[in-house]
Amino acid sequence: MKNKLIYKYIGKVLMSFSLLLLFPILVCIIYHEPIIPFLIPLLISLSVGFFLNSLNIQKKTLYARDGFVIVALSWILISLLGALPFWFGLDIPFYDAFFESVSGFTTTGATIFSNVEVLEKSFLFWRSFTHFIGGMGVLTFVMAIIPLSKDDKSMHVLKAEMPGPSVAKLVPSIKKTLFYLYAIYIGLTLLEMILLMFGGLGFFDSLLIAMATAGTGGFTTWNSSLATLSLFNKYVVAIAMFLFGVNFNIYFLIVIMKDLKNALKSEELKMYVGLYLLTIAFILLNTYNLFNNFSDALVSTVFHVSSFMTSTGFSIGDVNIYPTSCRIVILMLMLISACAGSTCGGFKISRLIICFKKIKRDFLKVIHPNSVHIITFDGKRVEEEVVNSTCTFLFLYIFLLLFIMVLVSFDGFSLEVTINAVFSTFANVGLCFNIANFSIFSGFSKIVLSIGMLFGRLELFPLIALLSNWRK
Amino acid sequence: MKNKLIYKYIGKVLMSFSLLLLFPILVCIIYHEPIIPFLIPLLISLSVGFFLNSLNIQKKTLYARDGFVIVALSWILISLLGALPFWFGLDIPFYDAFFESVSGFTTTGATIFSNVEVLEKSFLFWRSFTHFIGGMGVLTFVMAIIPLSKDDKSMHVLKAEMPGPSVAKLVPSIKKTLFYLYAIYIGLTLLEMILLMFGGLGFFDSLLIAMATAGTGGFTTWNSSLATLSLFNKYVVAIAMFLFGVNFNIYFLIVIMKDLKNALKSEELKMYVGLYLLTIAFILLNTYNLFNNFSDALVSTVFHVSSFMTSTGFSIGDVNIYPTSCRIVILMLMLISACAGSTCGGFKISRLIICFKKIKRDFLKVIHPNSVHIITFDGKRVEEEVVNSTCTFLFLYIFLLLFIMVLVSFDGFSLEVTINAVFSTFANVGLCFNIANFSIFSGFSKIVLSIGMLFGRLELFPLIALLSNWRK
Repeated sequence: MKNKLIYKYIGKVLMSFSLLLLFPILVCIIYHEPIIPFLIPLLISLSVGFFLNSLNIQKKTLYARDGFVIVALSWILISLLGALPFWFGLDIPFYDAFFESVSGFTTTGATIFSNVEVLEKSFLFWRSFTHFIGGMGVLTFVMAIIPLSKDDKSMHVLKAEMPGPSVAKLVPSIKKTLFYLYAIYIGLTLLEMILLMFGGLGFFDSLLIAMATAGTGGFTTWNSSLATLSLFNKYVVAIAMFLFGVNFNIYFLIVIMKDLKNALKSEELKMYVGLYLLTIAFILLNTYNLFNNFSDALVSTVFHVSSFMTSTGFSIGDVNIYPTSCRIVILMLMLISACAGSTCGGFKISRLIICFKKIKRDFLKVIHPNSVHIITFDGKRVEEEVVNSTCTFLFLYIFLLLFIMVLVSFDGFSLEVTINAVFSTFANVGLCFNIANFSIFSGFSKIVLSIGMLFGRLELFPLIALLSNWRK
Repeated sequence: MKNKLIYKYIGKVLMSFSLLLLFPILVCIIYHEPIIPFLIPLLISLSVGFFLNSLNIQKKTLYARDGFVIVALSWILISLLGALPFWFGLDIPFYDAFFESVSGFTTTGATIFSNVEVLEKSFLFWRSFTHFIGGMGVLTFVMAIIPLSKDDKSMHVLKAEMPGPSVAKLVPSIKKTLFYLYAIYIGLTLLEMILLMFGGLGFFDSLLIAMATAGTGGFTTWNSSLATLSLFNKYVVAIAMFLFGVNFNIYFLIVIMKDLKNALKSEELKMYVGLYLLTIAFILLNTYNLFNNFSDALVSTVFHVSSFMTSTGFSIGDVNIYPTSCRIVILMLMLISACAGSTCGGFKISRLIICFKKIKRDFLKVIHPNSVHIITFDGKRVEEEVVNSTCTFLFLYIFLLLFIMVLVSFDGFSLEVTINAVFSTFANVGLCFNIANFSIFSGFSKIVLSIGMLFGRLELFPLIALLSNWRK
């Protein structure tokens, strides 16, 4: 590592992580379950973190690229440590434990357990809690760390930054930014939990579902996902998923800045709502005849579109009834996902908008060669460098997707199963067609898919920054 | 139409086309088959062509964009006229005749006939001959018309031009360019025909196979494609397919300019050969155990990789035995296809090289922010505008592919069948997995796939130029 200060920050991250492990230990105490599986990673992360943090490092400046390396390393280390409880507590190979842990922290929600109902409460809590932590990590990274790199010219390509409003531009200190973000995040989670309890669900299940929704994760405590929820609660979760797919800057504008007018002007928000409603109409039109009545069809469609589009991955029924047309639309939607600055995975709607605007601009250039054509987003000009890095991002996204697909295809499953598995993990969705759970895949594929989830979650660049850092 | 001169040129194209219809009529006379199905389109194209060509148009200048509109209109009109023989002579709906005609002229080779062995010789000749004409058309368009638009700044985006050597830069007049190109094209075709006859095949079959290879088409006279060929002839066709996938500028450099050294330096050629050998090794490694002996495995692999990669679409056995890993690699290969400046379909290797170099450049920028990074191709600098238009091309390519997939998915076939059908037609391959022939699709899908073949063949831009011309 070039900048030794990175070690110090990793130490801080590990120490914070060890504090988070107190929560599952609390659950263990309440339900009289063994605390050892959680105590060991707590002690490891606390001691290693303490050691790294106490290193005597002279260097004072941390560059933006170092920030990326810290993010990448943190996610990998936490995923490894987070796998330990599963490994110690359950009789499964380490790659299974690692897959489940990565799936949790990347807020994917793809599981290797064919029967989750036999798991102890502390493990069920830990799975949902990893989603919640992962979601907070994403918000910290995307909303607080990336905007900090604004002044570092060399970062343009690495960060594939998004246009649009940014909390970091509006709030002077990073601490205040994070405080507001976490307040909104936790507030929305508590609101969902209370509504679910109001809808008849117990405290434990409500909390776990709300935490998994917040991170747009997808782990649940039942093998049938959320099929047994009441109609009211199905709509609560569907709407909550939709809301966690919105750019958190929008909430910031509304709640903290009281600027509803500017918030509603957001192009990405409009496109998100438009795509969401359009897809619901499309799926409803193509599947309503598969249900007993319209009410069943409506709730299933609204729920599953919310779930796939926000990369959450809950389900309330068999999605394999969907015809090919709906499957293709949903696979596309999975890759695109929802808004930047949310806990969702995928390519993000704002990047899609930039791609479309680039095509439009290039055609206008042909029709009117002598006039000037610039790309704007929310009324502001988008730098050519941002358009450029969006292209590079798309290229890399596609190449990685195809590469992972080839590696996973050696398991010999059909093309459809392979595509679904790779799309669902790379875009951090978790749910997909033809696959009930990921236990069917080989150890090699599980490791490949785990790495894919990490690349997808961190939007490729931090991991590549890490690799290029090692090469030096 | 803004420029009336376009009509005059369309007239010339139609008159030339009517002359080409004399060939199938000659076949009809030799084999005593009815000439009416071919005589009617001949008379229509001759009279309409004569009328358009004799229009009194004052305008003298033809802009590059008008050239694109002419190309697009020509392909559509010739596909419509070329469908008439099938429609008049056989009892099939017009969309079937149109699909077969488009598949011929776009050198795709996807057929709607479940049994081609019952067709009369004139129709068999016509199917293969459309490949040959289509191949010549592509060479004319890509090698002679696109380079002419070099000076028209507004064309940059439309043409998505390729770097690398260009015949047009080396030869002063367009007539001479075309003469050399056609000489190489016809020479290679005759060579293949003679070798096939030497290998024991009759004149008629050898001619048809050679013409279909030249256009990288794929129509044959047998239901089992080329499975009944001798081992020698299988290798002849495999090598011929590979050779027709090479950029014709390379042959031009070798044959006309005697400049072997520069020809072999071509980056695209190296990548083509590399990808070709790598894929053969990959497929062989994954499928050799499915064959009785290594010789069978080798000829099957070399033949099918040549066929898929050059978008020809001949087969010599059941490709459905391929496992998922090979299918994914082949699907990727279909979309990429072979060299620019050949008769192949797909995205083209030179564009892929530009995408990779863009990724590499952008990462070098991050690692060494203060040094200058330019993209070179064959030792020459690639303008940023070319990189830019390659991005736009890729975006459009993907969006169109997905859009066609959604439309075709309404037929209700599985995701795998839908993907195969769309990839195979959009990249002008014709052969694919899980689909023996395209008669299974609805009329609507056949029309959508036909339009897809045209977009794929003309590399999107001429058709878009045509649409934008109408809008004005």
